[in-house]
Amino acid sequence: MVENQFHLISLIEKCSFVDLTHDLDEGIPTWNGSCGFKKEVKMDYDQGVRVLSYKSHAGIGTHMDAPSHFIRGGKNISDIALEELIVPLCVLDMSKERNPDLLISPEDVLQFEKKFGAIPPRSLVLANTGWEKYWSNTVKYRNADAKGKMHFPGFMAKTAELLLQRKISGIGIDTLSPDGSTNKEGFPVHELILGAGKYILENLCNLGNLPPSGALALVMPMKVVGGAESAIRLVALAEPENGS
Amino acid sequence: MVENQFHLISLIEKCSFVDLTHDLDEGIPTWNGSCGFKKEVKMDYDQGVRVLSYKSHAGIGTHMDAPSHFIRGGKNISDIALEELIVPLCVLDMSKERNPDLLISPEDVLQFEKKFGAIPPRSLVLANTGWEKYWSNTVKYRNADAKGKMHFPGFMAKTAELLLQRKISGIGIDTLSPDGSTNKEGFPVHELILGAGKYILENLCNLGNLPPSGALALVMPMKVVGGAESAIRLVALAEPENGS
Repeated sequence: MVENQFHLISLIEKCSFVDLTHDLDEGIPTWNGSCGFKKEVKMDYDQGVRVLSYKSHAGIGTHMDAPSHFIRGGKNISDIALEELIVPLCVLDMSKERNPDLLISPEDVLQFEKKFGAIPPRSLVLANTGWEKYWSNTVKYRNADAKGKMHFPGFMAKTAELLLQRKISGIGIDTLSPDGSTNKEGFPVHELILGAGKYILENLCNLGNLPPSGALALVMPMKVVGGAESAIRLVALAEPENGS
Repeated sequence: MVENQFHLISLIEKCSFVDLTHDLDEGIPTWNGSCGFKKEVKMDYDQGVRVLSYKSHAGIGTHMDAPSHFIRGGKNISDIALEELIVPLCVLDMSKERNPDLLISPEDVLQFEKKFGAIPPRSLVLANTGWEKYWSNTVKYRNADAKGKMHFPGFMAKTAELLLQRKISGIGIDTLSPDGSTNKEGFPVHELILGAGKYILENLCNLGNLPPSGALALVMPMKVVGGAESAIRLVALAEPENGS
């Protein structure tokens, strides 16, 4: 018998699995407020089997922006190496802030590192802003003001710069965009992160169920050739607190 | 500093990652021969960013059949627990057979177990039939005869029954269907596996790069509510041969 020689499988059996992915369904919040996902029944049990088709925005639900979303000639979804998708996870806990115009600062990152150690190279750095609680209410989640400008937390451009110095694989957030509300002109966080060949994850959930560091992220986009964005399945594997 | 206490991350760094997912693109082989995936550019760099939309068969490319594909009231894609998706992997090597009408027998499974140990509960059992080499040629991959019947390897119904006794999570194959060519009436393998609440993975690749047992499968479907099928990202993590 050979089972016991496999450390990975016996270690995984002790881990907790956290699904950071929202259900993908009609009516979920989208960037422009339109319907972003539709399924259609093409055949059903009376003909033997149920067969559906899907139509969606490329950037729907819990999803990834590849560099090519902003950068001409940038990496597409299918070009991103598995070594950038199966990576250490760091979670900045901003959930007590309760400010829709919050921008996460470099100081927040430095405080994190003081408490939990340096952000390791290749990490995925997630911001838990608490905004996911509005997901089921599209109006509150988009939080558009009278001029149509949306208000939700994001990152300062300077914070993106600091994270790039740490040689991260990507960033993620539980809102529609890491640029938040108060990055006044354009999308500087998108431009910095995607411009550096890294990726952005949006509309995450269950971030409060993660340890600040030490978990493993599985970032699994569909393998769309020429895809600038894609729905992902995002899962974290967390070790038991006292190790194995 | 806390990094060294995380066994999982240091173990993963020693593993090899194998992507078992075909590129998702227009023109890939489909069950009925029609175009199964289309992308459309909705906005492009001249307007600031590239934004696409996707339209696809639910069961496109490397994908999962959930129980609800065949079973009224069966589990949908989004109902499948992570404990059934992050599982031990067993790979039956049938790649030397070179018979388009091959059906994998219970004896093949018993031979595997004799050599590599019992198939562990919760395993994903994959058949490496070598058929993936035809993927880039839709006509050869579908291999339809004059009557339109397709010919490619699959499993015997009795083999599905034996695997269910092992309490597997699911099965997968590098062809369009685990029912192969010579299961004459209906789709007995689909009916057995999906009827038991397990899942089926189709159109896999790179199965020749896997160890027969001991690797970890990451089976990551999109989290489609009410989805009977979904494109997946399927990745294996394999430990170095001499352990860590």
